[in-house]
Amino acid sequence: MIKMYDLAGADENRRFSPYCWRIRMALAHKGLDVECLPWHFTEKDKIKFSGQERVPVLIDGINTVSDSWEIAKYLESAYPESPSLKLDNGEVLFIKFWSETVLHPVILEMIVLEIHNNLSPEDQSYFRESREKKFGKPLEEVVAHRQESLNRMQKLLKPLRSTLSKQVFLSGKTPGFSDYIVFGAFQWARCMSNFSILDTDDIVYKWRDKMLNMH
Amino acid sequence: MIKMYDLAGADENRRFSPYCWRIRMALAHKGLDVECLPWHFTEKDKIKFSGQERVPVLIDGINTVSDSWEIAKYLESAYPESPSLKLDNGEVLFIKFWSETVLHPVILEMIVLEIHNNLSPEDQSYFRESREKKFGKPLEEVVAHRQESLNRMQKLLKPLRSTLSKQVFLSGKTPGFSDYIVFGAFQWARCMSNFSILDTDDIVYKWRDKMLNMH
Repeated sequence: MIKMYDLAGADENRRFSPYCWRIRMALAHKGLDVECLPWHFTEKDKIKFSGQERVPVLIDGINTVSDSWEIAKYLESAYPESPSLKLDNGEVLFIKFWSETVLHPVILEMIVLEIHNNLSPEDQSYFRESREKKFGKPLEEVVAHRQESLNRMQKLLKPLRSTLSKQVFLSGKTPGFSDYIVFGAFQWARCMSNFSILDTDDIVYKWRDKMLNMH
Repeated sequence: MIKMYDLAGADENRRFSPYCWRIRMALAHKGLDVECLPWHFTEKDKIKFSGQERVPVLIDGINTVSDSWEIAKYLESAYPESPSLKLDNGEVLFIKFWSETVLHPVILEMIVLEIHNNLSPEDQSYFRESREKKFGKPLEEVVAHRQESLNRMQKLLKPLRSTLSKQVFLSGKTPGFSDYIVFGAFQWARCMSNFSILDTDDIVYKWRDKMLNMH
């Protein structure tokens, strides 16, 4: 069976990486079973065999693939007969970069302290140090303004909302990897934070719900 | 031959609508000749037959189609054997809304006064009044801060730049309607303004150049 190293919190059932969520959804989309192995930020040694230090890492028989984009491409070429992730749509790459450079940063501002609090003790100090260096201030100060971050996110979601008001999925009538990329960003928040970033009557909430109930 | 009403300035050779540019490129992409009829904002009567008041309006034999998105869909279904605009890629709709709600507003802040100055006298008063109402201030004040708008645009272009650093076109190996949508936004600025919004060594400049030389 396919195995995947998947980022976990102190509670190993709390899987929260937006990049791992993309792949869990992609595997389900293609009808492939997977055994998800919990992994923590400070367990670099455990995935050393992959030649790099981040998850997801996918192991499929003799093949080891890291980086969520490379894994998605691998799945498409290794399992061409199962439903397509529609990676041939060039625009998916734009959605990936939009998600990573526009959506992730504003979501992180809102949930970074809760991510920290839900990590294993060894991960907490690594996480706090590296993230406070990036933000240039204590995590507590970052989230202190999260209502402003939320207002900013509402504006940034405009193109997503407009798209979902015209078609069921980002990828059209059926979901594709572009949907799973953006879904991953919201799952990250949902699995780690009690702060509600989407109203239940928001079209984005309904679209996310559709995917939660899908696989 | 296909005819299209195309927004023009005081100089009728100055065609600048981002929505019309999409369609000019789409027609060229599909190898279709077109006669472009210059049209001014205040000539609502001229296109009354289309049932609405905006350009582009396309006339193809007995068919009249307005709205650039509807026109693109029409061209795909009416000319299925010519190269596809790849409208089936669901993500194109996201690019459309990103372009219209993120890119257009920041570009307009930089060029709105020059648009005004390049319009026919009848259009100028209509344009100034309607746009000043939207901005809530004189056009001169809007463009006074255009260096800040430019800095903001540079950040907003991040997902576009990252995409074009990985693949030749937004739509992948070959251009699609998503490329023409974003191209239209830059043509709008290029045709109406002397303010340089893209550096020659910018990957977005090079991508735009490719399309300028294409058809």
